[in-house]
Amino acid sequence: MFYTDGKLQFPVRVEKPNPAFARALQQAIGGVEGEIRVCLQYMFQAFGARGPAKYRDMLLNTATEELGHIEMLSTAVALNLENAPLSFKEDMAADPVGGAVLNGTDFRHILSTGLAALPSDANGVPFDASHVYASGNLAADMYANVTAESSGRVLAVRLYNMTDDPGMKEMLSFLIARDTMHQQQWLAAIEDMGGEASLPIPNSFPQEQEQQQFSYAYFGHMTDGSIPEGRWTSGPTMDGKSEFQAMPSKPMGDKPTLAPARPDSGAQVEQTSRSGTGGMMGRVEGAIERNLLS
Amino acid sequence: MFYTDGKLQFPVRVEKPNPAFARALQQAIGGVEGEIRVCLQYMFQAFGARGPAKYRDMLLNTATEELGHIEMLSTAVALNLENAPLSFKEDMAADPVGGAVLNGTDFRHILSTGLAALPSDANGVPFDASHVYASGNLAADMYANVTAESSGRVLAVRLYNMTDDPGMKEMLSFLIARDTMHQQQWLAAIEDMGGEASLPIPNSFPQEQEQQQFSYAYFGHMTDGSIPEGRWTSGPTMDGKSEFQAMPSKPMGDKPTLAPARPDSGAQVEQTSRSGTGGMMGRVEGAIERNLLS
Amino acid sequence: MFYTDGKLQFPVRVEKPNPAFARALQQAIGGVEGEIRVCLQYMFQAFGARGPAKYRDMLLNTATEELGHIEMLSTAVALNLENAPLSFKEDMAADPVGGAVLNGTDFRHILSTGLAALPSDANGVPFDASHVYASGNLAADMYANVTAESSGRVLAVRLYNMTDDPGMKEMLSFLIARDTMHQQQWLAAIEDMGGEASLPIPNSFPQEQEQQQFSYAYFGHMTDGSIPEGRWTSGPTMDGKSEFQAMPSKPMGDKPTLAPARPDSGAQVEQTSRSGTGGMMGRVEGAIERNLLS
Amino acid sequence: MFYTDGKLQFPVRVEKPNPAFARALQQAIGGVEGEIRVCLQYMFQAFGARGPAKYRDMLLNTATEELGHIEMLSTAVALNLENAPLSFKEDMAADPVGGAVLNGTDFRHILSTGLAALPSDANGVPFDASHVYASGNLAADMYANVTAESSGRVLAVRLYNMTDDPGMKEMLSFLIARDTMHQQQWLAAIEDMGGEASLPIPNSFPQEQEQQQFSYAYFGHMTDGSIPEGRWTSGPTMDGKSEFQAMPSKPMGDKPTLAPARPDSGAQVEQTSRSGTGGMMGRVEGAIERNLLS
Amino acid sequence: MFYTDGKLQFPVRVEKPNPAFARALQQAIGGVEGEIRVCLQYMFQAFGARGPAKYRDMLLNTATEELGHIEMLSTAVALNLENAPLSFKEDMAADPVGGAVLNGTDFRHILSTGLAALPSDANGVPFDASHVYASGNLAADMYANVTAESSGRVLAVRLYNMTDDPGMKEMLSFLIARDTMHQQQWLAAIEDMGGEASLPIPNSFPQEQEQQQFSYAYFGHMTDGSIPEGRWTSGPTMDGKSEFQAMPSKPMGDKPTLAPARPDSGAQVEQTSRSGTGGMMGRVEGAIERNLLS
Amino acid sequence: MFYTDGKLQFPVRVEKPNPAFARALQQAIGGVEGEIRVCLQYMFQAFGARGPAKYRDMLLNTATEELGHIEMLSTAVALNLENAPLSFKEDMAADPVGGAVLNGTDFRHILSTGLAALPSDANGVPFDASHVYASGNLAADMYANVTAESSGRVLAVRLYNMTDDPGMKEMLSFLIARDTMHQQQWLAAIEDMGGEASLPIPNSFPQEQEQQQFSYAYFGHMTDGSIPEGRWTSGPTMDGKSEFQAMPSKPMGDKPTLAPARPDSGAQVEQTSRSGTGGMMGRVEGAIERNLLS
Repeated sequence: MFYTDGKLQFPVRVEKPNPAFARALQQAIGGVEGEIRVCLQYMFQAFGARGPAKYRDMLLNTATEELGHIEMLSTAVALNLENAPLSFKEDMAADPVGGAVLNGTDFRHILSTGLAALPSDANGVPFDASHVYASGNLAADMYANVTAESSGRVLAVRLYNMTDDPGMKEMLSFLIARDTMHQQQWLAAIEDMGGEASLPIPNSFPQEQEQQQFSYAYFGHMTDGSIPEGRWTSGPTMDGKSEFQAMPSKPMGDKPTLAPARPDSGAQVEQTSRSGTGGMMGRVEGAIERNLLS
Repeated sequence: MFYTDGKLQFPVRVEKPNPAFARALQQAIGGVEGEIRVCLQYMFQAFGARGPAKYRDMLLNTATEELGHIEMLSTAVALNLENAPLSFKEDMAADPVGGAVLNGTDFRHILSTGLAALPSDANGVPFDASHVYASGNLAADMYANVTAESSGRVLAVRLYNMTDDPGMKEMLSFLIARDTMHQQQWLAAIEDMGGEASLPIPNSFPQEQEQQQFSYAYFGHMTDGSIPEGRWTSGPTMDGKSEFQAMPSKPMGDKPTLAPARPDSGAQVEQTSRSGTGGMMGRVEGAIERNLLS
Repeated sequence: MFYTDGKLQFPVRVEKPNPAFARALQQAIGGVEGEIRVCLQYMFQAFGARGPAKYRDMLLNTATEELGHIEMLSTAVALNLENAPLSFKEDMAADPVGGAVLNGTDFRHILSTGLAALPSDANGVPFDASHVYASGNLAADMYANVTAESSGRVLAVRLYNMTDDPGMKEMLSFLIARDTMHQQQWLAAIEDMGGEASLPIPNSFPQEQEQQQFSYAYFGHMTDGSIPEGRWTSGPTMDGKSEFQAMPSKPMGDKPTLAPARPDSGAQVEQTSRSGTGGMMGRVEGAIERNLLS
Repeated sequence: MFYTDGKLQFPVRVEKPNPAFARALQQAIGGVEGEIRVCLQYMFQAFGARGPAKYRDMLLNTATEELGHIEMLSTAVALNLENAPLSFKEDMAADPVGGAVLNGTDFRHILSTGLAALPSDANGVPFDASHVYASGNLAADMYANVTAESSGRVLAVRLYNMTDDPGMKEMLSFLIARDTMHQQQWLAAIEDMGGEASLPIPNSFPQEQEQQQFSYAYFGHMTDGSIPEGRWTSGPTMDGKSEFQAMPSKPMGDKPTLAPARPDSGAQVEQTSRSGTGGMMGRVEGAIERNLLS
Repeated sequence: MFYTDGKLQFPVRVEKPNPAFARALQQAIGGVEGEIRVCLQYMFQAFGARGPAKYRDMLLNTATEELGHIEMLSTAVALNLENAPLSFKEDMAADPVGGAVLNGTDFRHILSTGLAALPSDANGVPFDASHVYASGNLAADMYANVTAESSGRVLAVRLYNMTDDPGMKEMLSFLIARDTMHQQQWLAAIEDMGGEASLPIPNSFPQEQEQQQFSYAYFGHMTDGSIPEGRWTSGPTMDGKSEFQAMPSKPMGDKPTLAPARPDSGAQVEQTSRSGTGGMMGRVEGAIERNLLS
Repeated sequence: MFYTDGKLQFPVRVEKPNPAFARALQQAIGGVEGEIRVCLQYMFQAFGARGPAKYRDMLLNTATEELGHIEMLSTAVALNLENAPLSFKEDMAADPVGGAVLNGTDFRHILSTGLAALPSDANGVPFDASHVYASGNLAADMYANVTAESSGRVLAVRLYNMTDDPGMKEMLSFLIARDTMHQQQWLAAIEDMGGEASLPIPNSFPQEQEQQQFSYAYFGHMTDGSIPEGRWTSGPTMDGKSEFQAMPSKPMGDKPTLAPARPDSGAQVEQTSRSGTGGMMGRVEGAIERNLLS
């Protein structure tokens, strides 16, 4: 269970409120790169963690930190909305042509929250918890977390560059630092779990059951047969188990053929037979053309 | 632009159609771990790629491969639905008590598609493109791609373990192999882009502008002051720039105080003053208590 | 900011794991009546609270309690999934016809989380934060909270009635008690804020600016002119300001008439004039027929 | 079944069309506080109403009124869009710097509807019917309806304050009056259904089956042990059955412990045991520590 | 504005309640092929109709009919849920192995509505109003309506085939008849608006401004150069203005080249130049290779 | 499977980048009228096509073309974002009052993609695959495709009218031409499948099983008994099978009556009986009053 002291992890100051920046900050609250997402993600990973208890504890701990980031950013949004115009008349006072302030505002900050934050992104799209990646595989989850903190730090840097407000820059410089740490933390957890020994994820599946001739091959799909070269087309693989190779992709299966529609399935009458192609049962034939690639 | 030959990259065979497995396969088509997602993700990363052209080409190439995986899995769903019961009466024929087959079916396979795949997940939730991560930062995107292929391979392994159909196992063993390669490929691309030199992401932000005393510190939020230990609490950081440390988290800011509600903002009259707390302007005070942590 | 001790607010025991009940419990986690919703709702109401500080504190405090309920329910889901079948073969072992267990399972519990909770409802629809009602009007929010705890308790009671597991019944009897309190708490807060003096919400709008002849009238829309009678058609109004009356609804406006489509607006040519109705400018005429109701 | 006369319930006039206000009005059509929501909410509550028929009739009647509000507001949006610029060139004519009008417009009003209303909110997010609360418990539903009309009236007041157009103010003053009535109506229905006797909702669950020691206790989660005081911490409860009390929240359960991951569940190998914590079966232990609170 | 008489347009009888069929019926209420969609679609098309008034009237009239279909189907769902089991114990009574009834149920019918309809589809996905197509172009809208009634009738036929209940078959045979009429109605409206003269939609755009050499050409994208033949590759076009032709698709543009990332845009340092490709400004070159196709 | 050459189907040039137009173009990528939708729609129709193989081939071929349109438009968005301001300071440089450029921008183009396209619409709402109509009935699907290309061409024309950039006009004139062709193509496919013989859709359901007295009747729901006249109220029906007629709609069913709530269903106690209306079992009575309409 959880506790609070009602205080902010780091001070939140706004010198010159800017309703458009309030809108931008929403991305860091309710966007896919935002804090609600990482908070719930680490929380659900912790709640479902199976295996050594330390990973659960570590996840839960950082989830708890992220709650405070939602709090900081929501406070920042509210403070940026102090003095926002509530009517077109007020807006006109700032700009005779009009539109300078209100046009940049998330209207729901005025209409739906009374000058406070929403759990939505910079376009007003509500956060949706399908972005909470908690796969039950801790290594996959750690990579998901590195990703979240990478796109999170990219976002925080863009917000930092967007504003000139010293208070906002200070707050963001703290959040950027925390994103730095969290990138490191999840990469450290991957090393803690065995590093390259954790690959391929999941490492509990016997690799001899996969079609191993395709396990380390970069497939080319260019019509001219060319293949973009890089670290991924030659040299040892990242898990140290094989060599990368480049391979043009060719179809090993035939054109798929489904059975005609059944008369009681709501299709058109014309679909109930396969005129010109015979009436054989629906199935897709095709021997694996292994020699095609040898 | 794109081309097709109408054939399958790998043969798709179903020996014993199973409508419940058709439902399970939907997760690999329209789920967040699925093929529509990776296909569009690599495509949008390619379309927006700035910098060296080879990354764009590599991404576009693999996006094109993933299109063929959507095709394979959609074919697999349709073939698993051949012979599915279309009515409660048919269902009863298989099981006198009833429900053995129909209950396990995605009803929309019967009602909405006429026994074919949906661009939805195993619960019928439609794919939503907010899961297409394309941040404009190639390193962040590569980690997103490792994540996608990790959760994708976890899913494919679970589907492999769920079924006994030899054709389905064969198809999945191919997709598992491709997921192995794609994990390797994106990790190789990270190395290609500088490996640890790419950290922290984005590496274009001057780290002296972040609050560096918090950049490599694991914060503890446990009420008893304990901190879960691991690779993330001591030793050199993953980017080689510092040492991990453990640090109890303490509030550096005060309780936030917002201005009272404005009379024309749709609040209650009672909110327009701050009875008992004085009438000071809305702002959040708090010097950064650096000494708190020294 | 927030803290945790990693323990459960109330013990969570499952005597006989039941994957179908795990699915049902999801409604209490990620459903619109669920705990993620109330937790975020109280949190965002607190973060944006303007006016007396005590309401902010009260909200934040209860938001923090609700975090622990998400934790309890997520644990309950994971425990109900222990021993769930991972394959059709395993499922067959329990029931020769098959389908008895797997058909009732949320497939994503097997495929996406590895036997753990999702932030989704009982149908697998992810929680979406548009359900976080935080209007900036504390009285409106208190009613939203009464609503949330009412539908929440209704749900908890239905879950209690659904299961026979003593551990689950015990946990639910605790959550039901908390919902009882929370209903009371928000009603108490309404009284604390003035009770009927808080009506109509918002109470900051001068009622003489509304069309007061319609402010306490129940409109009838039945074609036979009948009006369903009850406390809402006669007697003093709930705010003590007037008397309820019943009034048949009649149109006070005319049929609306929009301007023809502009030639460059992507309409059909036929829409660019109003054949048969003249070419007058788009507007909707209609004097307010006050006498109609006198 | 339903009928129409094609006329407006109340006249809709726009003296000076304003495309930005058209965007704002969308919140009242397709927003969570809007008319589509209340209309469908009352309709589904009516369609599923069990018990005395008068509640069904009352609900259906008001649902029918709300249909006319969608019509009025959609007309208002279309009229506010007359004369909106369709191109950047037209926009420039109004403001040499540009952006004054188009920037404030919902682009889909130009691109998707040809200058007419959308069933979406002020940010263009489409209405989603998960907001239709119809719980099957009439008292819970009545509170949901009070909430909807409270946030609806708050929104209408904000729109009224935002605009200077006399026609729009007149229309909104009518809608505000109707929201006043509808707040009264649902509160009256609660009284009609027994008032405080309807508490706790649902009142059909025997309260002796809930953990009654927690039924009227406000839990404190502040780390310093303080508890925010108010009507909710002392005095008789709102249902007249008990006394409020304040109680610090303490964990009654232990840390949860899940079983190790199963080898065939797609986890990492490392998760299949609980190193350092022994190999006991997954379960959460913990006697209810009642004495903790005595 | 609207009126009701509270009666059903057509009788709704259920002889043998079936909770699984209640779930199936949800698709016809809240599915993309369902009645909420057509109702709101015709309503919004009417509210925004510009041009001759008769189309607005016709649309509004049928929208009003569809309201009654939502009512009928919601009633059918509630009646199919009478006697549904509310607990696993009840379910066991019907089937010793268990799962026969509950597994096929939408759990939210038990947990969220108390045995009544939801505004959701057969998988519990809530209706979302982005499916309300109202483009401001009446001809486009009429085709959208033909589509809606076509998929609606396909769905109704599948439901008819799924059930054996005489009451349900009778109700569906009525809805199927109405879908027949509505298909005819919208096609008649297209003829009323000029039939093939309405093509291409919109017919207000001067066709000499489109790249007319591609206006009637079916493009082939098969790698072997083959083109699927049919009515669409030869013969007069459907608007009578030209002849269909088959044409292999070839790229007329080059590979796109974007400018390098700006240093302050949150990208990686490596993206800020285009190593190996020179440093030219971001743009996509390419003369239109008209001769390529001549 | 699929292939690419990395080139653009048609050149994409932007002479004067305009971030607001980048936002507008998003509608054509991720909007419901956009290219992701048609691409996936034709693809899923192809993957599930039952019946003559030529329709599958034709669909797959055009799906492949649409992939290239996503690519073109995404490139157009990125090019329109070159030179977009990344901060409020930069924005001020263009307009002393501020807001001229940034206010019109999709902030996520700056914050989330680093100046590249999103798979979202002009309001930032992500594409959601529920818009992929693939019904398993080819005739229904062809009408869905005519609809998609009609609203798609309406959108493209509006974008063409919005911009003055010669490069953008050229690109759009190509896409408009392709939409012209695709409208023709799907209409041709309907003719290929039998034209009016394909009606009503599905044509596999025996019409004698529908309530044929209502199959060709336009229902009037106006309270004054008037019925909007047109091609749909008289003359031969579009399928040549009957004559249109106009018919006032009257209720054939009674008021629906559901059973009282069950005591264990979470309702209020008051709902468990039907006071005043007797205690009869839940059902809806009503003989079909055929004579009512004769």
